[in-house]
Amino acid sequence: MYEFTSPFQQPSGSPIRELFKYLSEPGMISFAGGYPASDLFDVEGLRLAAERAYASAVQCLQYGPTDGLATLKRQIVDLMERRGASCEADEVVATTGSQQGLDLLLRVLVEPGDVVLTEEPAYPATLQAFRLQRARIVAVPTDAHGIRVDELAALLESGACGRPKLLYTVPTFANPTGATLAAERRRALLALAVKYRFVVIEDDPYGDLRFAGAPLRSLLAEAEQVDGARNWVVHFASLSKIVAPGLRVGWMVGPREIMRRCVIAKQTVDLCSSPWTQAVAAEYLAAGALEQHLPKITAAYGVKCRELCSALREQLGAAIEFQQPEGGMFVWARLPGIDASDLLARAIEQKVIFVPGKAFYADAADGAALRLSFAAPDVEAIREGARRMKQAYDAVR
Amino acid sequence: MYEFTSPFQQPSGSPIRELFKYLSEPGMISFAGGYPASDLFDVEGLRLAAERAYASAVQCLQYGPTDGLATLKRQIVDLMERRGASCEADEVVATTGSQQGLDLLLRVLVEPGDVVLTEEPAYPATLQAFRLQRARIVAVPTDAHGIRVDELAALLESGACGRPKLLYTVPTFANPTGATLAAERRRALLALAVKYRFVVIEDDPYGDLRFAGAPLRSLLAEAEQVDGARNWVVHFASLSKIVAPGLRVGWMVGPREIMRRCVIAKQTVDLCSSPWTQAVAAEYLAAGALEQHLPKITAAYGVKCRELCSALREQLGAAIEFQQPEGGMFVWARLPGIDASDLLARAIEQKVIFVPGKAFYADAADGAALRLSFAAPDVEAIREGARRMKQAYDAVR
Repeated sequence: MYEFTSPFQQPSGSPIRELFKYLSEPGMISFAGGYPASDLFDVEGLRLAAERAYASAVQCLQYGPTDGLATLKRQIVDLMERRGASCEADEVVATTGSQQGLDLLLRVLVEPGDVVLTEEPAYPATLQAFRLQRARIVAVPTDAHGIRVDELAALLESGACGRPKLLYTVPTFANPTGATLAAERRRALLALAVKYRFVVIEDDPYGDLRFAGAPLRSLLAEAEQVDGARNWVVHFASLSKIVAPGLRVGWMVGPREIMRRCVIAKQTVDLCSSPWTQAVAAEYLAAGALEQHLPKITAAYGVKCRELCSALREQLGAAIEFQQPEGGMFVWARLPGIDASDLLARAIEQKVIFVPGKAFYADAADGAALRLSFAAPDVEAIREGARRMKQAYDAVR
Repeated sequence: MYEFTSPFQQPSGSPIRELFKYLSEPGMISFAGGYPASDLFDVEGLRLAAERAYASAVQCLQYGPTDGLATLKRQIVDLMERRGASCEADEVVATTGSQQGLDLLLRVLVEPGDVVLTEEPAYPATLQAFRLQRARIVAVPTDAHGIRVDELAALLESGACGRPKLLYTVPTFANPTGATLAAERRRALLALAVKYRFVVIEDDPYGDLRFAGAPLRSLLAEAEQVDGARNWVVHFASLSKIVAPGLRVGWMVGPREIMRRCVIAKQTVDLCSSPWTQAVAAEYLAAGALEQHLPKITAAYGVKCRELCSALREQLGAAIEFQQPEGGMFVWARLPGIDASDLLARAIEQKVIFVPGKAFYADAADGAALRLSFAAPDVEAIREGARRMKQAYDAVR
């Protein structure tokens, strides 16, 4: 009856959201979601921030600037400074989660048919955003130390992918792999961006969630050390995983010329993100509440991660392969010889869910891979979930 | 240095936002903005709603459903019922202001090069959204009773615009004209949509702001009386003009097949609008606060509108032509023989601003037209603003 545009003729929703229907089943244990732990939200700290924000009620209730409330942008500049990356307010655009930043950036940079590079496996919503923009996706493989910059260099050198417009990566505690890009690869990646003139999108929602190992400088911070590289990095950040997703407060930091165009696109897309939740975020950050509360989240995630890894080893032994992450929310595992979609069907019978790896690939997938999130379930549920994974594994083998 | 997509190579921001820089000048009186009056916000009612919403803190802070919080959607269904249009929850998608609804709808319906129809003059952000989607814009003229449905019928009959994908209209208290589409034209428009199979976008942010005359049924409500018409109407609504824009709570009501695709697009665009402000909106509506507070806003706008109209007549007499609106926020005026852009330059010297009419046209504009908003300034400022308009007029004549 209707004539939909080509990406929507046979629309497919998020493969992860498809699993949500199982969450309401009694007794279901979920390793599937990308949600942060609800019981770790700083409910009282945010209540106080909201009270202070509403003292300027008109600022909360009226339209705000398209690029974000000035008070929030000041806090973001300070936070980025503490994270080792200097920037100024006009290099920052506040967005409705960092997801919106990606959408805006693709609109101003990517014409249909343009080549975009992505690490693989990769965050499914990014792959979907590329498809909606009708980009040609070229995947670059990753290993335990993040994106294979040597393979990227060979690809670019060969000219096989033309001049790509951009490259997408989550260099710190990647989704889904949990891997972190090694420091020398960071510099090499930036040098390639300068040489081949493509934008590196550094998606960094998890960087603060480190519970082991030593911190690394972000690509944005590292770019100050690589000649010309700041012209080619757009950094996405968000309060969703470190404060609360319900604020829908994310931001991007990038070259002024690109940011200015993203703001013009945002005027048409939604005029502005909610100044009310932006004001709450600004008050929360100004009070130092992030630094005060964050250690509670990272400590809890560290415990959960170790628990999941040891329970998986205990239950599945040599049958399962994975690398224990140093932060973030995800364990990326392989069960050689097993198809993860078959495993999921049996797992659902055992009342445990996870995300089969194929959701994270643009084309040919590693069928034996799966993503397990340890953020939301408690330690008891993690142990029981691992036992059920073993039962599902035995059933499918 | 960068290769931007075609709509962003020579980007132009909102012509109305361009005027914002003058707002900070001391003593400036603005008839330019589309902002509701800040001093009419129900600050206390919204504070109480926010308190009640935060009693379910986790619902406010966690990710929410992409199509909107169930509690909000229930309130929206009830509100639409009170407005005379029955719908069910799965025909409703909550959006970040109704602006986002338009963006989502264009993405699922409009391919580059597709014909889209719009009333003219029209809301500039809609024209801009059409341009970003690379649609071919065909304008349909309007008069004191809204879009000229007879001219639309002739246009469609002639085949000159092929099969248009959709038609955009603000049928009640239009932006910028303040005009309201006559009842018989509403039914005729719906019949054309069914016959020629295009989607009618009914943008209805101002419908509740009636301070004179008798209410008319919305196109959505009227569609129940026209065979097949409900399949071709997508209705946009928003709390921005009747409660507060800072909530960024809007919604659309439309055919399930279209809404489902808009939800899939929204997964990629921002995952969800803030569940926190959605929860506040739901509590506010559930308490009956909208119905209690709205009469204060419409009464105040009625006074301001009458004041502006009589002050303009007093100052400019026969030199100015306009139709006094029965609701909304805008007076659309003409000063025959005057170029409104020249007038604006002189007006800025006199410390008063308005929006020259050309911002509201896709192509050839009525240079003598201008839009004056009476919502934000107080009665004193309206009178003084009209005096300054007269001085600017004398200077430019």
